[in-house]
Amino acid sequence: MPAELEGLHEECGIFGVWGHSDAARLTYFGLHALQHRGQEGAGIVVNNNGVLKGHRGLGLLTQVFSDESSLAKLPGDKAIGHVRYATSGSSSIDNIQPFLFNFYSGQCALAHNGNLTNCPSLKRELEDQGAIFHSNSDTEVLMHLIRRSKAPTFIDRLKDALNQVHGGFAYLLMTEDAMIGALDPNGFRPLSIGRMTNGAYVLASETCALETVGASFVRDIKPGEIVIVNDEGYHIERYTDNTQQAICSMEFIYFARPDSNIYGVNVHSARKRMGKRLAQEAPVDADMVIGVPNSSLSAASGYSEEMHLPNEMGLIKNQYVARTFIQPTQELREQGVRMKLSAVHGVVAGKRVCIVDDSIVRGTTSRRIVTMLREAGAAEVHVRIASPPLRFPCYYGIDIQRTSELIAAHKSVDEIRDYLGADSLAYLSIDGLVESVGLHDDAPYGGLCVAYFNGDYPTSLGDYEQQFLDSLSEEERARVASFAKLSSSYTGNEFTQYPNSSKKVD
Amino acid sequence: MPAELEGLHEECGIFGVWGHSDAARLTYFGLHALQHRGQEGAGIVVNNNGVLKGHRGLGLLTQVFSDESSLAKLPGDKAIGHVRYATSGSSSIDNIQPFLFNFYSGQCALAHNGNLTNCPSLKRELEDQGAIFHSNSDTEVLMHLIRRSKAPTFIDRLKDALNQVHGGFAYLLMTEDAMIGALDPNGFRPLSIGRMTNGAYVLASETCALETVGASFVRDIKPGEIVIVNDEGYHIERYTDNTQQAICSMEFIYFARPDSNIYGVNVHSARKRMGKRLAQEAPVDADMVIGVPNSSLSAASGYSEEMHLPNEMGLIKNQYVARTFIQPTQELREQGVRMKLSAVHGVVAGKRVCIVDDSIVRGTTSRRIVTMLREAGAAEVHVRIASPPLRFPCYYGIDIQRTSELIAAHKSVDEIRDYLGADSLAYLSIDGLVESVGLHDDAPYGGLCVAYFNGDYPTSLGDYEQQFLDSLSEEERARVASFAKLSSSYTGNEFTQYPNSSKKVD
Amino acid sequence: MPAELEGLHEECGIFGVWGHSDAARLTYFGLHALQHRGQEGAGIVVNNNGVLKGHRGLGLLTQVFSDESSLAKLPGDKAIGHVRYATSGSSSIDNIQPFLFNFYSGQCALAHNGNLTNCPSLKRELEDQGAIFHSNSDTEVLMHLIRRSKAPTFIDRLKDALNQVHGGFAYLLMTEDAMIGALDPNGFRPLSIGRMTNGAYVLASETCALETVGASFVRDIKPGEIVIVNDEGYHIERYTDNTQQAICSMEFIYFARPDSNIYGVNVHSARKRMGKRLAQEAPVDADMVIGVPNSSLSAASGYSEEMHLPNEMGLIKNQYVARTFIQPTQELREQGVRMKLSAVHGVVAGKRVCIVDDSIVRGTTSRRIVTMLREAGAAEVHVRIASPPLRFPCYYGIDIQRTSELIAAHKSVDEIRDYLGADSLAYLSIDGLVESVGLHDDAPYGGLCVAYFNGDYPTSLGDYEQQFLDSLSEEERARVASFAKLSSSYTGNEFTQYPNSSKKVD
Amino acid sequence: MPAELEGLHEECGIFGVWGHSDAARLTYFGLHALQHRGQEGAGIVVNNNGVLKGHRGLGLLTQVFSDESSLAKLPGDKAIGHVRYATSGSSSIDNIQPFLFNFYSGQCALAHNGNLTNCPSLKRELEDQGAIFHSNSDTEVLMHLIRRSKAPTFIDRLKDALNQVHGGFAYLLMTEDAMIGALDPNGFRPLSIGRMTNGAYVLASETCALETVGASFVRDIKPGEIVIVNDEGYHIERYTDNTQQAICSMEFIYFARPDSNIYGVNVHSARKRMGKRLAQEAPVDADMVIGVPNSSLSAASGYSEEMHLPNEMGLIKNQYVARTFIQPTQELREQGVRMKLSAVHGVVAGKRVCIVDDSIVRGTTSRRIVTMLREAGAAEVHVRIASPPLRFPCYYGIDIQRTSELIAAHKSVDEIRDYLGADSLAYLSIDGLVESVGLHDDAPYGGLCVAYFNGDYPTSLGDYEQQFLDSLSEEERARVASFAKLSSSYTGNEFTQYPNSSKKVD
Repeated sequence: MPAELEGLHEECGIFGVWGHSDAARLTYFGLHALQHRGQEGAGIVVNNNGVLKGHRGLGLLTQVFSDESSLAKLPGDKAIGHVRYATSGSSSIDNIQPFLFNFYSGQCALAHNGNLTNCPSLKRELEDQGAIFHSNSDTEVLMHLIRRSKAPTFIDRLKDALNQVHGGFAYLLMTEDAMIGALDPNGFRPLSIGRMTNGAYVLASETCALETVGASFVRDIKPGEIVIVNDEGYHIERYTDNTQQAICSMEFIYFARPDSNIYGVNVHSARKRMGKRLAQEAPVDADMVIGVPNSSLSAASGYSEEMHLPNEMGLIKNQYVARTFIQPTQELREQGVRMKLSAVHGVVAGKRVCIVDDSIVRGTTSRRIVTMLREAGAAEVHVRIASPPLRFPCYYGIDIQRTSELIAAHKSVDEIRDYLGADSLAYLSIDGLVESVGLHDDAPYGGLCVAYFNGDYPTSLGDYEQQFLDSLSEEERARVASFAKLSSSYTGNEFTQYPNSSKKVD
Repeated sequence: MPAELEGLHEECGIFGVWGHSDAARLTYFGLHALQHRGQEGAGIVVNNNGVLKGHRGLGLLTQVFSDESSLAKLPGDKAIGHVRYATSGSSSIDNIQPFLFNFYSGQCALAHNGNLTNCPSLKRELEDQGAIFHSNSDTEVLMHLIRRSKAPTFIDRLKDALNQVHGGFAYLLMTEDAMIGALDPNGFRPLSIGRMTNGAYVLASETCALETVGASFVRDIKPGEIVIVNDEGYHIERYTDNTQQAICSMEFIYFARPDSNIYGVNVHSARKRMGKRLAQEAPVDADMVIGVPNSSLSAASGYSEEMHLPNEMGLIKNQYVARTFIQPTQELREQGVRMKLSAVHGVVAGKRVCIVDDSIVRGTTSRRIVTMLREAGAAEVHVRIASPPLRFPCYYGIDIQRTSELIAAHKSVDEIRDYLGADSLAYLSIDGLVESVGLHDDAPYGGLCVAYFNGDYPTSLGDYEQQFLDSLSEEERARVASFAKLSSSYTGNEFTQYPNSSKKVD
Repeated sequence: MPAELEGLHEECGIFGVWGHSDAARLTYFGLHALQHRGQEGAGIVVNNNGVLKGHRGLGLLTQVFSDESSLAKLPGDKAIGHVRYATSGSSSIDNIQPFLFNFYSGQCALAHNGNLTNCPSLKRELEDQGAIFHSNSDTEVLMHLIRRSKAPTFIDRLKDALNQVHGGFAYLLMTEDAMIGALDPNGFRPLSIGRMTNGAYVLASETCALETVGASFVRDIKPGEIVIVNDEGYHIERYTDNTQQAICSMEFIYFARPDSNIYGVNVHSARKRMGKRLAQEAPVDADMVIGVPNSSLSAASGYSEEMHLPNEMGLIKNQYVARTFIQPTQELREQGVRMKLSAVHGVVAGKRVCIVDDSIVRGTTSRRIVTMLREAGAAEVHVRIASPPLRFPCYYGIDIQRTSELIAAHKSVDEIRDYLGADSLAYLSIDGLVESVGLHDDAPYGGLCVAYFNGDYPTSLGDYEQQFLDSLSEEERARVASFAKLSSSYTGNEFTQYPNSSKKVD
Repeated sequence: MPAELEGLHEECGIFGVWGHSDAARLTYFGLHALQHRGQEGAGIVVNNNGVLKGHRGLGLLTQVFSDESSLAKLPGDKAIGHVRYATSGSSSIDNIQPFLFNFYSGQCALAHNGNLTNCPSLKRELEDQGAIFHSNSDTEVLMHLIRRSKAPTFIDRLKDALNQVHGGFAYLLMTEDAMIGALDPNGFRPLSIGRMTNGAYVLASETCALETVGASFVRDIKPGEIVIVNDEGYHIERYTDNTQQAICSMEFIYFARPDSNIYGVNVHSARKRMGKRLAQEAPVDADMVIGVPNSSLSAASGYSEEMHLPNEMGLIKNQYVARTFIQPTQELREQGVRMKLSAVHGVVAGKRVCIVDDSIVRGTTSRRIVTMLREAGAAEVHVRIASPPLRFPCYYGIDIQRTSELIAAHKSVDEIRDYLGADSLAYLSIDGLVESVGLHDDAPYGGLCVAYFNGDYPTSLGDYEQQFLDSLSEEERARVASFAKLSSSYTGNEFTQYPNSSKKVD
């Protein structure tokens, strides 16, 4: 939750089904299982005998589809849906997906999870050619590229377009006669195929959505792949061989639901291993372990079991915290009013406690937690973080855009410990993370992206390169330079070549 | 959560403050911490220099007070508030509290948590005298009794009225010059006083609300007590000496927030002790312990620690489950669509699991959980319940009104195990419960009400006696009779005398 | 419209039906025809085989019953409904009618059009006896009086209660087995019975609602009468013989719809006669007549025909003016921004115009109209008012509560003309009004109430007497005294005797 | 109103202001005066120091801008706005204007009143070039044409685009540094410039909006003209000399507000002249004249004055009729339930009445009116229509798309009279219409478009030609052919040449 509290957001979840009589309702439940990936907007487009129709809106899925009548208007046996996290200032209905395009030659719907590194330059080129954009999302660009391609078939035009967009993306398309999923050459975002008992195929950002709708797991989509689902079943094609797996490690650390499996690895179990490994790397002398609810409970459980310490509920999260627009005033905050998280006096008073958290972004919430625990009577407060320090922005779909927001970009672990007011502080190592996840891919870092920890971005940064460099202070630039030296990919042209190293997968 | 899933509901939460410049906002945060006690309606009445004004509505607190403007209309330095659970069919705005009464002689607001056993007969008597009721809540009766009393002062009239209402109640009143709390002679519902750093006094159903607003705990209100807060501070009076503590044990088992203390006992710690005691009473041979989220996590933690088994996240609850009006169809349910709770295949496959839950109501959810775990590959599924079997209705404020809804009213533990499809099933004993809570009051059951477990109601059932007897099948009546023999309070006139036994407290 | 623009409001409309399978929908359409009598709230209560159920809300009927589902929840073949004008500050849902009362002995619904002169003292007495009121409307009092009556039957108790309330009222009640209408002893408000082709009976404030639902007129309810409709048909009873007809003349002048008939007199035709009579009493030398839309168009038509002058559309009202919360700023007003009413330059430029209006309340709108017409180029602007000057408050159901709001209470006709900036100004005489309406009842003023014109109130003012006297300035008191001398009813005890003169009707 | 009742709709109103500190509010009031031109959606875009921002929504202006806060978000001293009539099925927010386009090279907003005859073929061509449309309105096409033009300046590109779109249009654009209005070569829709006292310029569809905001009339925009307003003032340019005035005669007959002037002719006065001319062409022997409210009141007044007959309110329209979603069932309609229009029994009983209406579309409402009047007791019912029979669709912005909807396309006047059940029926002649309006332009029909009366379309029908011919029955084709013979413009290629005749204006 601290990640959540401090504004670390995933940018989307996608779900689609082909061949179920109640497709919109099924998509509703699939998206419901993915709601944690985006709470600011949602939409569903159905395909009813080749006619596409949609509904979308701002807010939680339950607000956008507030009653049966909202589903009743979406008959059909194929559907795709989307839940969206909107960066502040762009929360316009125009940006809510799936986008539905009506051409005289037919209809097409499009949804997207990720971030393109060359979107601004693509948009500029397209506008110079007369293109008009109606949203400020990266998603729309793909459709313009498809429409301008001169390739013979829709799939060929799509491949053409996919080779022009760079960065992190998982696309989901619905045409009149097919549902298509596509993943970027690094596979930054997860995307899986499942199959229902009636034979319907589903595509989903996480396997938890497969389980929610009663579908069995078929296979993960791999970097550079397209999956095409139609009445004949599904088949896989590739639009590039220039791939290298680098799945976002924050999916394992924080974003994904604990019951999801990514590339065969259960997220809860990975987190529990991170907690155990953290206990080995940084043991503590304390009376109890306390997980920060809810996202750190798995890691805390692993840590406590490895340490043979009781795992206690010393912090409690208000389960009704969402969607309030009423906040404590500064005066009330100073008087101790706390809405979201409370320390449990009856549990921690007089004890030496060790809190386990998934990550630290700005540090303000962690600091508040330490203070709360001390005020509730804790004798000592130790902090253990089940991931490495966050030091760099992400340009592939997580909302960490400025190093100024990241306390570890500016402070050493000792300085952070002092800022938090903790008795001790330790992070998990990058190696510990990679081994705890245990993907065993032979790409760098076992197939994980760890760029926000060490600056070793798997791709060129494209249009963001200058912004990234500009956002660094003099001191930070030096820090980046030193990392660059340590990182084999940080050679002179590391931001301009794409991709700088690759291997064939599959 | 199963209790939640199967319709076990608390009936309300109350909060009040006297002497804080931002009273409505503070009450908002206090109620926010009590939202788990009632999600169907909320309201706040402020007292601004002797003028009372309120706002109330249906839904969650965040829906009723949806933005700053809703608080801005409620200036004043004293306030009381209420969150309500509405039984189905009565979800009318007319029933949302606090009720605000405008008399030519002044104003008064009233909120209530509990259920009166003689409400129907009181209402009938009052209507015969010309009284007109505008809600179907028990709350309004008290005001009619106050208004008809000929006693000289408001407090005297209130005491007069309190001696006429029977059952379970915690009342909160705001008059032009005082805030008053009152508890029934058995203290079925918790009610506590806290004090803020600026000297303001707060009253709240649970101590978690005190902590949320930064107030320190002063004292619990005890059975038969009235607390009067005004500009001079607070003082306690009694309206009866005929008291006997019998606090609802479901508060410890399920309702109260884990960070609350009730009569000095921390709820999380009590639940953890229940889990440990359950492990002693009914150990298991399994690979892991799984708590049913969220309400059983404390008990599961105690059980696993006592058993030295790993505590795993083998069941996951969708955090966004609230407030949807869209449900899976029967067909989708049969296809495996599940909205609220999923089993985690990656954790349980091939393992012998032991789930720990707080209670079983109808058994349908527990059965679903067992099935889900088996479908997810669990080799064995053992079930441990950290409370005794629920066998009887509650007439003091919990929504268990018919024995037909209670599986343990009709089936033996072995029959329930078979119904659930579990490999083994065990409940905590009543003695285990009483000792785990550890109130050590010298009233029966250590000062706990355990009537829903054994039929030993601490008071006459009043107007509900006949309904209770009628609701029992022939077989159930026999069962009650056999319990009655075991219970010293079940003598020939146990339903008509009130109270059938008592002791002076304090 | 000026009356409307300046805040002259009727206080309600009522409609009921007994014996039509689609009773709620029929009541919806009946209320729709009465919407002009109250736009701030609406409600319908149905009686479905003896079970009463209702829906009510703030706003226009189309807002309260916004779609088919809102009617679908109200099945039944009997219904009563209400549209309400709420005085500012009391626009709470608690005041929206019909009120629905649930007693253990049965249900009853109640709606009301009018104002009681002894409501405050009745409420005080009832509260002293323990009664609790939940609204601040006059309506609720009647139900308390009914409930406290010891008379043997419901009708007897109702008569008992009706003899205790004084002032202006048309009540509509729905019990489990009858629909009942009741009118005050002066018949201040209209109330009519109609019959549908299927035999169903309807009761409505105005005959326009009968025509809207396809019912034929049966008869008007007369002062002091009760009409009881049940499965046997309808019959009339009397609760008092102490009656004297004094129907509100503003119904004819402004409130009622032009297509309604009141006591057999068509409202449009009466207004046209007022315009013709005004032309005889106060002719004009002008080029055209302009009616102020919409309420004065009938009178303007009569005036122009009698004067043989063209009747032109020199003023236009925006048909979409309702319900905006956005107003011109003072600066915009000074720049000439006008939302509601515009002068038509193309029609009036260079012409001598005579505007005809129904009444003048504060004079501010009339002044604005004169100014607009001059700015649009009118060479002369003459003003003719088709009713006498408004000088006194109404206590029987029209929202004129203070003489300070009435320009004619303080200024002579010449002074008003100067204030308006008109070239000439004339009002209709009281005699002219009485003869134009032409009711020919042998009560004073032909059976019209003209108290707001001359202070000759048909009843004691009860609780309002002191407020009325206090609201008058020294000069106004003198004015009242002089009127009092001219009026036979203004003797020493004119405010305390009730009624001061009476005749048997029927 | 019958036109309104039977679905004759204008397609939009536009308003803009340049140079007023409260531009959004001013635009709100301007649009409010144009609300009769479109009630299904509204929007405003402001220009605040070169930054454009907008708000739009479905419904009436008062629903889209429901409170002050909706305007507060739109600061700036320049704005354009739009009210829209949406054809059924396309009432999506995506179609609500003004459209706001964000290019990397700047922003531009666009609003439109009218209909293009070559929109489908333009859209197809543009899509073939890769263009993506986001609405199904004709409006968006213009922006694509502007963006694809290679002309050097924005105005040049706009002129380029305007020469490619055919049909009826009044465009309003807001760029960062100018507000631009543009009118089609026939001037089908009105558009005027006004000036406020502070020097700000406004553009509006009708002069009534100028008066509402206190602006004085400057000049009408003429066919083929562009008006450019910027900080230097305004100037006029032309994008074509190939023009011929043909303003929509339905603006004079029905759409425009009576207080508007079009090309210097007051609409109310024109309608009154139509009524007088109709009295000369088709006098009646009756007791009274009754105008059908509200749109026919001017014509009825002219007719009655010319005939020296009293003008009575024998029909009444419910002023609250708008926005209801609850309709009488068929059964209720048969029982006589009427929501919108009632006959006034007290006025018409026993009389020979002559109703005057503006036009007949399907005839169903006129038939209902005749029936209602007879049921209300009228002895004779004569019908006079103050315009010629409607026989052909409009392709320039009025929603008459099929001849099957037009009773006069299929029936003679005698047949229509029989259908209506009237004692007599007469229409105004085309000559009578042209002379009553009195524009005196030397274009055909004095500069009026009368195509819906005689099939003499001023332009080619473009993409609609085939649809038009297909929509005609065999018999109708013959009818068109006979009209074509009478019309000089109906030569062999009358649908393909554009424009078939022209003259220089100004």
